[in-house]
Amino acid sequence: MDALAEGRAEALARLTAFLAIPSISTDPAYHGACLEAAEWCAGTLREIGFEARVEPTDGKPMVVARWHLETAGAPRAHVLFYGHYDVQPPDPLEAWTAPPFEAQIVDDDIHGKIIVARGASDDKGQVMTFIEACRAWIAADGTLPVDVTVLLEGEEESGSPSLEPFLRAHGDSLKADIALSCDTGQWDARTPAITAFLRGLAFSEVTLHGPSRDLHSGIYGGPAQNPIRVLGELIAGLHDETGRVTLPGFYDGVRDPSPAQREAWRALNFDGDAFLDEVGLSVPAGETDRSVVEQLWSRPTIEVNGIIGGYTGPGTKTVIPAEASAKFSFRLVPGQEPAKVIDGLHRYIAQRLPADVSVTYRGEGGSPAVGFDTDAPAFRATAQASQRNGARPPSIVGCGASIPIVEAFRTRLGMDALLVGFALEDDKIHAPNEKYNLTSFEKGARSWARILAGLGEANGAA
Amino acid sequence: MDALAEGRAEALARLTAFLAIPSISTDPAYHGACLEAAEWCAGTLREIGFEARVEPTDGKPMVVARWHLETAGAPRAHVLFYGHYDVQPPDPLEAWTAPPFEAQIVDDDIHGKIIVARGASDDKGQVMTFIEACRAWIAADGTLPVDVTVLLEGEEESGSPSLEPFLRAHGDSLKADIALSCDTGQWDARTPAITAFLRGLAFSEVTLHGPSRDLHSGIYGGPAQNPIRVLGELIAGLHDETGRVTLPGFYDGVRDPSPAQREAWRALNFDGDAFLDEVGLSVPAGETDRSVVEQLWSRPTIEVNGIIGGYTGPGTKTVIPAEASAKFSFRLVPGQEPAKVIDGLHRYIAQRLPADVSVTYRGEGGSPAVGFDTDAPAFRATAQASQRNGARPPSIVGCGASIPIVEAFRTRLGMDALLVGFALEDDKIHAPNEKYNLTSFEKGARSWARILAGLGEANGAA
Repeated sequence: MDALAEGRAEALARLTAFLAIPSISTDPAYHGACLEAAEWCAGTLREIGFEARVEPTDGKPMVVARWHLETAGAPRAHVLFYGHYDVQPPDPLEAWTAPPFEAQIVDDDIHGKIIVARGASDDKGQVMTFIEACRAWIAADGTLPVDVTVLLEGEEESGSPSLEPFLRAHGDSLKADIALSCDTGQWDARTPAITAFLRGLAFSEVTLHGPSRDLHSGIYGGPAQNPIRVLGELIAGLHDETGRVTLPGFYDGVRDPSPAQREAWRALNFDGDAFLDEVGLSVPAGETDRSVVEQLWSRPTIEVNGIIGGYTGPGTKTVIPAEASAKFSFRLVPGQEPAKVIDGLHRYIAQRLPADVSVTYRGEGGSPAVGFDTDAPAFRATAQASQRNGARPPSIVGCGASIPIVEAFRTRLGMDALLVGFALEDDKIHAPNEKYNLTSFEKGARSWARILAGLGEANGAA
Repeated sequence: MDALAEGRAEALARLTAFLAIPSISTDPAYHGACLEAAEWCAGTLREIGFEARVEPTDGKPMVVARWHLETAGAPRAHVLFYGHYDVQPPDPLEAWTAPPFEAQIVDDDIHGKIIVARGASDDKGQVMTFIEACRAWIAADGTLPVDVTVLLEGEEESGSPSLEPFLRAHGDSLKADIALSCDTGQWDARTPAITAFLRGLAFSEVTLHGPSRDLHSGIYGGPAQNPIRVLGELIAGLHDETGRVTLPGFYDGVRDPSPAQREAWRALNFDGDAFLDEVGLSVPAGETDRSVVEQLWSRPTIEVNGIIGGYTGPGTKTVIPAEASAKFSFRLVPGQEPAKVIDGLHRYIAQRLPADVSVTYRGEGGSPAVGFDTDAPAFRATAQASQRNGARPPSIVGCGASIPIVEAFRTRLGMDALLVGFALEDDKIHAPNEKYNLTSFEKGARSWARILAGLGEANGAA
């Protein structure tokens, strides 16, 4: 898009100005800077023609901006773009090669020109790829190919406490056909990624009750049932020797990835050994007939996240405890329902509970997995748009975890979110000398420009 | 013994005076009363001819009293009698029917005359059974049939912190052929008990180390090894389906009780159902081919006394923890060595540890079981002496737990301790309206008088 090429220097100047605002949300000393960053974003969006407001919350304000066309014909496609204007604290300051809020453009041996500053990648640089794409569209065509709502929050780096209340209060005015988020990375330096699979989550805290009180293991040891022992036996029985989960009905509805999908994942050459090695492991502990990528993106799990029972202080206390507890969580894949999976755990435990041991459950809940229909028009448009003009086709990747923003959009607004980002593993987000490649910045803006076009065309075609 | 019968009223007056001293060791406000109780004991022992001293410690003083005859011939038998002069706090005061330090003699429907006061049973009443026996011997014969050292501590109700240092410092002067303690109960109201079997103890804290740091269960769940799962599998494998412990070499050296012993235990009609019912249990969880009494007194165990790993606070945190720990303890029976048993645990874990999980141990140690030779002269003399004059033969019982004083005498002084007491289950020790039956008090003194005689004869016969 020519408008992007022509405005390159100005775009960089705008990013540099945004990076100069120390909008550290977690530090009250920078509250003013956060307000300034919000106003800066709203002003920038107004400048290119959006209707933009800074909306107060109990914490940092939200920036909400709209580009909506009143049209007589079929309704236009409408996307909600999400990003955040706050940044992590820059500590330790002495590890920076230049002041963190004075962006420097430097030459890097590997990446060419990079821009170094707190927030360069996470998330100011990424947010600006989208805004610059919109600016270029409006400059060239006088309009955008789809209706766009922009939502920028200021507390992403401190747990997003105001996001859910804001979505609850203003959900109707934010709802679009699809949400777009750029707070993620590329697959590698040359391959963009669209996150299309996110595992769901279910959880249950299990407490086993044995004797009516803690017992002395000398007086009672032998005939008395020990709930820690029973809990150990329950945990040991959760998996068979191939690593499959043994709970009744656990795999009901679970579909294998399509051969094409498996082939695509194989082609990613995901380095499972390196992935494990980085955290001190060497042998995949999941289902023995699945690759690490398949285990992570397409297979459900049960984990014990915490366990406690009896005496856990220093030294010894020879107690047989009255109870023992474990926190279990499940990672779910499409086809599984959290409530059914939790019910399977209940049935498993009920079948195995020995005499004199009872069970109580608490803290149960969950949310299903996200599996985009990669054949849906919006998805295909996004994927195809990313690779026009000779760019590499994007990798359609999964994520083993649920992502709060995706979850929030789905629960609060009933919308799916597409995660398309241009960050790289080595961008040093949350660390000193955070950087963003200028190629990420420029290609990111081009990609968004094409994605907006693709989404508009997909809508017209539907 | 006539001297006992003649002195009955005076003996009761002395016990009442002892009970009037509120020697609550755990409450600093009663420190003076503890000193007074120690002096009262020393004075009482001096009055009947003992050489008695109140020995200072860092806490409450020890009373040490001796009756030693210089004889030209074979050395006389020498016993060390242990008891304590301190008592539990009387709270809640409002639950007492009379002031706890003003002993009342009342008629009880079940037990006849009882004396109600804090310490009536634990341990002032029991200590006085021994002192009254000595008093009667000296009154009648002018001497005792054996040499006697009396050791009364004043911190038994607050963890005996000064006992071990005192034994270390004064051990040589306290060493005797055998220790006698009366801080235990009868089998039932008509049957005295001698505790002849005490299980030993070994312990080990096991920590399993998996990933090099806590992992996000979304990002890593599936391929990452979870040390809580491995710990559960280790715990589950500790017992086979019959309840036997599977550790290598665990039962090496373990002997079954003799048929006579098993028959004697059967004759006790120990009510295993009631024993379990009292703590909310109904089915013995130990080895399926052993009675509850055998499980408790003659069979070794492994228990998990505590377990911890991962997130144990409120709510959920989907972590795969870097480590998980459990505190194991063993109850040992004669023939087992603590170090070998712990080594068996190490071997078991080493055999089963999966890839990427390592183990560390800490807090290991233990002490072997005590199994008296019930055919030894001192033991037979004690047992036989208890049943002269038509009294029921004593039950030779076990105790599933180690008893600190027995352990301390054995480790510090190399002496075995015989536990002979006249308390009853319903004496309400540590509770309001503590009582001691006057028959316990009188029969106890008579039993001690006979036991001292029997020990003297056994020595002469040896």
